[in-house]
Amino acid sequence: MIAGDILADLREIVGASGLKTGDALSVLDPGADQHNLDAGVMVVPQNTAQVASILRFCNEHRIAVVPHGGRTGLAGGAVSAIGEIILSLSALNRIESLTASAGTAIVESGVTLQALQEAAARVNLSTGIDIASRGSATIGGMISTNAGGMDAFRHGVMRQRVLGLEVVLPDGSIMSDMAQVTKSNEGYDLKQLFVGAEGTLGVVTRAVIRLAPGDEFTATALVACPSATDAVALFQTLQRNRSLNLLRAEFMAREYFALASSNLGPASLAAFTRAPAYIIIESDATDQQIAQTALEEALAAAIDAGLVLDAILAQSEKERNEIWNIREDSNVVTRVCPHGYWFDISIPLQHLESWLTQFNNGIAALGSDIKGFAFGHLGDGNLHIGVAGETAKPDKDKIKSIVYANIRETGGSFSAEHGIGLEKKPELHALIDPVKLRLMQSIKQMIDPNGIMNPGKIIG
Amino acid sequence: MIAGDILADLREIVGASGLKTGDALSVLDPGADQHNLDAGVMVVPQNTAQVASILRFCNEHRIAVVPHGGRTGLAGGAVSAIGEIILSLSALNRIESLTASAGTAIVESGVTLQALQEAAARVNLSTGIDIASRGSATIGGMISTNAGGMDAFRHGVMRQRVLGLEVVLPDGSIMSDMAQVTKSNEGYDLKQLFVGAEGTLGVVTRAVIRLAPGDEFTATALVACPSATDAVALFQTLQRNRSLNLLRAEFMAREYFALASSNLGPASLAAFTRAPAYIIIESDATDQQIAQTALEEALAAAIDAGLVLDAILAQSEKERNEIWNIREDSNVVTRVCPHGYWFDISIPLQHLESWLTQFNNGIAALGSDIKGFAFGHLGDGNLHIGVAGETAKPDKDKIKSIVYANIRETGGSFSAEHGIGLEKKPELHALIDPVKLRLMQSIKQMIDPNGIMNPGKIIG
Repeated sequence: MIAGDILADLREIVGASGLKTGDALSVLDPGADQHNLDAGVMVVPQNTAQVASILRFCNEHRIAVVPHGGRTGLAGGAVSAIGEIILSLSALNRIESLTASAGTAIVESGVTLQALQEAAARVNLSTGIDIASRGSATIGGMISTNAGGMDAFRHGVMRQRVLGLEVVLPDGSIMSDMAQVTKSNEGYDLKQLFVGAEGTLGVVTRAVIRLAPGDEFTATALVACPSATDAVALFQTLQRNRSLNLLRAEFMAREYFALASSNLGPASLAAFTRAPAYIIIESDATDQQIAQTALEEALAAAIDAGLVLDAILAQSEKERNEIWNIREDSNVVTRVCPHGYWFDISIPLQHLESWLTQFNNGIAALGSDIKGFAFGHLGDGNLHIGVAGETAKPDKDKIKSIVYANIRETGGSFSAEHGIGLEKKPELHALIDPVKLRLMQSIKQMIDPNGIMNPGKIIG
Repeated sequence: MIAGDILADLREIVGASGLKTGDALSVLDPGADQHNLDAGVMVVPQNTAQVASILRFCNEHRIAVVPHGGRTGLAGGAVSAIGEIILSLSALNRIESLTASAGTAIVESGVTLQALQEAAARVNLSTGIDIASRGSATIGGMISTNAGGMDAFRHGVMRQRVLGLEVVLPDGSIMSDMAQVTKSNEGYDLKQLFVGAEGTLGVVTRAVIRLAPGDEFTATALVACPSATDAVALFQTLQRNRSLNLLRAEFMAREYFALASSNLGPASLAAFTRAPAYIIIESDATDQQIAQTALEEALAAAIDAGLVLDAILAQSEKERNEIWNIREDSNVVTRVCPHGYWFDISIPLQHLESWLTQFNNGIAALGSDIKGFAFGHLGDGNLHIGVAGETAKPDKDKIKSIVYANIRETGGSFSAEHGIGLEKKPELHALIDPVKLRLMQSIKQMIDPNGIMNPGKIIG
């Protein structure tokens, strides 16, 4: 428990309305993990100076601080416990500037992705990154987890969107590196340490974000491929096709598509050609007809080349939404098969087919009660995988050994875009290079010697 | 001087042919700085294990190590002195694999950019990065300086090309993070520390490089704009034009174009419309006629919109080369005005016009003997600036105060793509955030406590 005099001191910094306990806290949505608000104490600073005062105070008094963005993280990075305080960035929600001529925005870290997307869209720009939790996820949280999403194959992950960063260190000092340019080499690029650090090294308070061109008129198709290798070849062909601007390429393996299409409908999609691999392709052009024609021609050529078995080109916004719903409402897995686990891996594209084969064989060998569902972001080889029993949870270690088989040897990753948090700590310690792990621990010790920043997450 | 018994021990590690002194060293090209080879001793390891043995040995004996790639660096990062040893990565020159289906390559750090470009081109891919010193510059050197070049506005700088990295730390331990995927979040992304560290934290030995689609049929134009602001607007228009694939947009200010075109000819370019701002535009398409037509139509629209005064579309490879030569042979500045200094800055695009105005006014106020020549990579706001006197070197501090005026306040950078090395150390200490500088020093101390790695460069 945090003592009353400590609470009084924190109230001094953030004002009465900036300190939430009891009922004021319990009305908040805990977000993706039911233990996110367990600390029972939240401070809500109004600006960077207050964040600095809070950290300086907590560092002196050895109080653990759990930074909160939108609480949409899927790896437990925002879980808090009694005795800790939650530092919510929700009041740092100003878009300070958005400069269309330079394609940049300066934002506070509590701005939601959607707020920035809407501001960018008003000048025909985009954030260059999109994730399903856009309405709640904050820029600071996305920086701290180095978020990915569907646009990463063309615009990179969150790390590549960050031109500048302001971070408050555990001792309350403020590191300001708010460059607004792509090229800046001014010694070690220390902001990179805080991107993906999940709040264990400091608190991100402001950032300069590089924006990207906005989408124009889009064409969308659902495509069935003879194999994952053909799906990869199709992706590469479309990406290199100069008459087409490829925006999205989302992958679904046979089992996921069968489950999702039969449960989410409509009948036309549920009855679509059975195949080992599906892709949702989206491209754009300066007008609707050009977009449709370009995608249609590219898919016709791909059918001739044997890369595609069958394709449905959406003819209306309704049909487009029906196709996307199959992919986006992936919670259908948990609704139908509730006894399971999720994984978030990257596989180099040349190994996608062999990974899927060994995964399907491995799951099949566990008996007919256990099902495996793989889907994700094709261009990045980033798969989200649900493995579930129809009646009871399967053995987790057994599933892990199937999912992570050869992941190191093939150059893949056990942790693609959701972060380590609490959930992937066993994998981190088992699978990463020991020299890297030792250096991570030294850096944590150097920057946060009292271990106040988000303790227990990632390492420590 | 390095003692004879030390040389004998180093010879044990790398073999007789791997230790170069005296004549064996003096036949080598010192590269961009005449002091690069001053140490007089070079070891040439054959593999990562030998690099590790060398560093372990040098760390124990407190011998300073200066890593060398292609010696093309422009900031003095490879300068060496008596008592130090040069560690050349020239024998780590294998392209271990290049996987077209995944768009990745695994290379040793001594591979030249051109070697990788040629290997990638054979499968219709590119490195996604290009610099003029491609024939000598190595992948390891480009990682260590976080090289930029002409393609950065669309593919990012070298940091964005690196998916995985192997680094030997000063104590001889090997940090291996050879991920082959875009999305990998496995704790702190420590490889980022070594990208741009200019060899002061360890030695890059291997890397996984993300490749990009190769160029198709290109169209090239020289364009004169009424102002830098119009040049920026034209760049944005072309970048967002879905009927055009913009590859390059190189900027030249009036004074540079006048000098280069009159000295490098041909007469048609020397007589081209006088304007405050020029851009060389290059785009591509799947065939030559489509590429030419798309660029022609886009430029016609830009003339109508008032963004362009005049344009020359290259009608042959010869005309294309003549246009590019005006930009690429920038040494013309030094040949015509030898008494000068060079700068390498980034300016956020919305401030390009005002920066140029204050630069031109500032230089003009120094008298007619002093000339300023600005050109560079428009999309990144990255300018290379030569300031020279016709008869004698101007006062450097005075020039600096003009070039760097407001560079921090506007979100620009005093060090865009050439690195800090020895040359930009005064700027680094004067202009960067003191909290960042302190943290840089702590990290240097932590990773290289004996200060053996490239001492005196960047910090220390």
